[in-house]
Amino acid sequence: MISIREIFKNTENYIDKEIEICGWIKTNRGSKNFGFIELTDGTNFNSLQVVYGKELGNFSEIEKYTLSSSLIIKGKLVESPGANQSFELQAKEIKLIGAADNTYPLQKKRHTMEYLRTVSHLRPRTNTFNAVFRVRSLIAYAIHKFFQERGFVYFHAPIITASDAEGAGEMFQVTTLPLEDIPKNDEGKVDYKKDFFGKETNLTVSGQLEDEAFALAFGNVYTFGPTFRAENSNTPRHAAEFWMIEPEMAFADLNVNMDVAEAMLKYIIRYVLENAKEEMKFFNKFIDKDLLARLDNVVSNEFERITYTQAIEILEKANKDFKFPVKWGIDLQTEHERYITEEVFKKPVFVTNYPKEIKAFYMTENDDKKTVAAMDLLVPGVGEIIGGSQREHRIDILEKKMKDLNMNMDEYDWYLDLRRFGTCIHSGYGLGFERAVMYITGMKNIRDVIPFPRTVGNANY
Amino acid sequence: MISIREIFKNTENYIDKEIEICGWIKTNRGSKNFGFIELTDGTNFNSLQVVYGKELGNFSEIEKYTLSSSLIIKGKLVESPGANQSFELQAKEIKLIGAADNTYPLQKKRHTMEYLRTVSHLRPRTNTFNAVFRVRSLIAYAIHKFFQERGFVYFHAPIITASDAEGAGEMFQVTTLPLEDIPKNDEGKVDYKKDFFGKETNLTVSGQLEDEAFALAFGNVYTFGPTFRAENSNTPRHAAEFWMIEPEMAFADLNVNMDVAEAMLKYIIRYVLENAKEEMKFFNKFIDKDLLARLDNVVSNEFERITYTQAIEILEKANKDFKFPVKWGIDLQTEHERYITEEVFKKPVFVTNYPKEIKAFYMTENDDKKTVAAMDLLVPGVGEIIGGSQREHRIDILEKKMKDLNMNMDEYDWYLDLRRFGTCIHSGYGLGFERAVMYITGMKNIRDVIPFPRTVGNANY
Repeated sequence: MISIREIFKNTENYIDKEIEICGWIKTNRGSKNFGFIELTDGTNFNSLQVVYGKELGNFSEIEKYTLSSSLIIKGKLVESPGANQSFELQAKEIKLIGAADNTYPLQKKRHTMEYLRTVSHLRPRTNTFNAVFRVRSLIAYAIHKFFQERGFVYFHAPIITASDAEGAGEMFQVTTLPLEDIPKNDEGKVDYKKDFFGKETNLTVSGQLEDEAFALAFGNVYTFGPTFRAENSNTPRHAAEFWMIEPEMAFADLNVNMDVAEAMLKYIIRYVLENAKEEMKFFNKFIDKDLLARLDNVVSNEFERITYTQAIEILEKANKDFKFPVKWGIDLQTEHERYITEEVFKKPVFVTNYPKEIKAFYMTENDDKKTVAAMDLLVPGVGEIIGGSQREHRIDILEKKMKDLNMNMDEYDWYLDLRRFGTCIHSGYGLGFERAVMYITGMKNIRDVIPFPRTVGNANY
Repeated sequence: MISIREIFKNTENYIDKEIEICGWIKTNRGSKNFGFIELTDGTNFNSLQVVYGKELGNFSEIEKYTLSSSLIIKGKLVESPGANQSFELQAKEIKLIGAADNTYPLQKKRHTMEYLRTVSHLRPRTNTFNAVFRVRSLIAYAIHKFFQERGFVYFHAPIITASDAEGAGEMFQVTTLPLEDIPKNDEGKVDYKKDFFGKETNLTVSGQLEDEAFALAFGNVYTFGPTFRAENSNTPRHAAEFWMIEPEMAFADLNVNMDVAEAMLKYIIRYVLENAKEEMKFFNKFIDKDLLARLDNVVSNEFERITYTQAIEILEKANKDFKFPVKWGIDLQTEHERYITEEVFKKPVFVTNYPKEIKAFYMTENDDKKTVAAMDLLVPGVGEIIGGSQREHRIDILEKKMKDLNMNMDEYDWYLDLRRFGTCIHSGYGLGFERAVMYITGMKNIRDVIPFPRTVGNANY
């Protein structure tokens, strides 16, 4: 059995040879004496044209085989006179394996994205989703390849956790207590001693803090795993379950952090452009006509680097009516971010050194005592795609901050240990994996880049 | 800044050059006029020897720098006259970045594995755990590399799920309902309409069913993600949170399934042997003296393939006192599995075609109607490491089985769709990632191959 991918890749090895292939019908057009089947086996974006003629004993049955039926076909691969493809398979034998009757939900017509979400188990059989999920897979691999080639250690942060990386954020609780009859203790509170872990646990919102522990042992590490937000936000950019990549580097300052983020993003895009040519052409044609130009712009330009203060100055001078007024101290909104990256610089822009009030406790306080060594990467078409920082490595400053925020110091004692025993400058960032997939495919809804998306009210499959 | 890994790898590029390195002290021995620091930056299993002399202004301070303090060192890499390493760094400048005082929990002495688990944030700084987690990372990458090179699509199965892949198994519940005050409906039952997803949800125990949907769209796919079991089993081989690899292949029967499993396991082991030579030597010396011989045996032999019925015959004839009596129909116990793989065949053995009563509903029923097309891979030293099957692709047989098991047919309707619309023979297997890491490192407790393990009563960090 030869895959259609292999036939397209090494066609010369198979021309004029008898081969056996298998797959599913994408189209089937019969006429009086012969017919054409477009067959896909899922391995290749383009399907293979199969020609069958009257000489086949089951010709009249083949003609009736319906969309998505599975077949095994023996035949000879020959050069094709006209048509789109330069080769086709002349069938000698076509065997029906599994029929698909006319209740098959994806009949040959355009379906809305909304409808396709209701059949998430079948939508990867469509061109769009076949392309999306293959590219998703390639991006994931490119990320591993990038970090492994640079000696980073891949690290699995815990999914179930008793701590909360951001000191906030809505979380899913994980429990084995019976909800019908929650055990209570003498004080009338939930008796977590009876829960599986003996305490209240949640699904992780970030692996960063644990990541730091590993960076201070291995130098360079990265996580790539699922993270969760129980936010009741029904937007095209939010899912309750999504994957995140979080590299963390010891003895690396904010500049190194930006260097790595820039190199990584370029590496991923190049990898996809090289390894999913047909898919990317398809996206550019049917999903987003500016896609390839935009990605090309990203890989071929050095990213801009400006401070938050410079960004505010630019926005204040802008002859533009922003919905959210601009003033030093505000958190940049998507409209601001997109103006900077799309209209001012027309390429990716790192914005650094944000006001400390709008950023997380673990970021390094700058000498001005007003800003922290944070960086956000803004890209045309999206806005923020990466967020990172140099971490506060000075225990006195970190402890004071945590106390000011009323954080539970006992719970974070291990995190402070990292500053007690051989602390050093270290930095890292987070890339939302699905954001990256959306960016590279041009898909506009996060539900359409996740195999089985989880959002408010939806955990089907 | 040059990494110690780079210095070891391309030593000739740096000999007699001035370089700057950073890292943490592993040992520091001063004498009257000079001293030696073993420095690690985490990137390399072996540390770099740094020699410092009286000519350094802060000589008397350097002598006092303690274990795990972080330093930045400038110096010249020179060939070393005697000693273990053929090169060392002659320090020109040693700068203390972060001291580690004498409360550092990992002072220079042997610590028990149990103690080290209590400092999971620091244990990767020890030789053993540095080696374990680097090898864990390499195994993960080797798995991706193996499948990607063969065109498999990496697929993220959902973590939060409303279905239960095995029709059994203890699961963690995921909820946003307030446990202190669970909302009830008119019937006095938990009102899941108020929960985040509008229904009862759990953490996945396997991505296999969703995996099948993707295999029937892409041909060859694999998952690699976390799975969960809320089993109250406090053993060295069970964790509540662990990672699993589940490849799934369309148009592939049980033989192809075994071919891929065998090729994958050999590929991973070879990759680690090539890319973690020092670590593997270390394990062989300090953790398990038979390790390298055992792994070499695995990569250099064709795996044996026998049926369950043959396995039972072998066990019945064995001159051996098994704790669990042998009889056709029993589930093989570890003692049986290890006898077959260690004493009879002395190499990995696939056992196929198990009695249907002891295997899952989704496995293909064989023509004898007594057995199913299942396969388990048994390896010396462990027993079962991989379990898989050819999936039941015939809707009538599958439906009957599910009904006999009183499964909720509505919930699995989408799974039956895969048999309704172009069904085909397909197969897959599951590899417990941590089991693989234990097997390849020789580590005996699953808690010692997971960065921050989750087990009954333990969700620290």
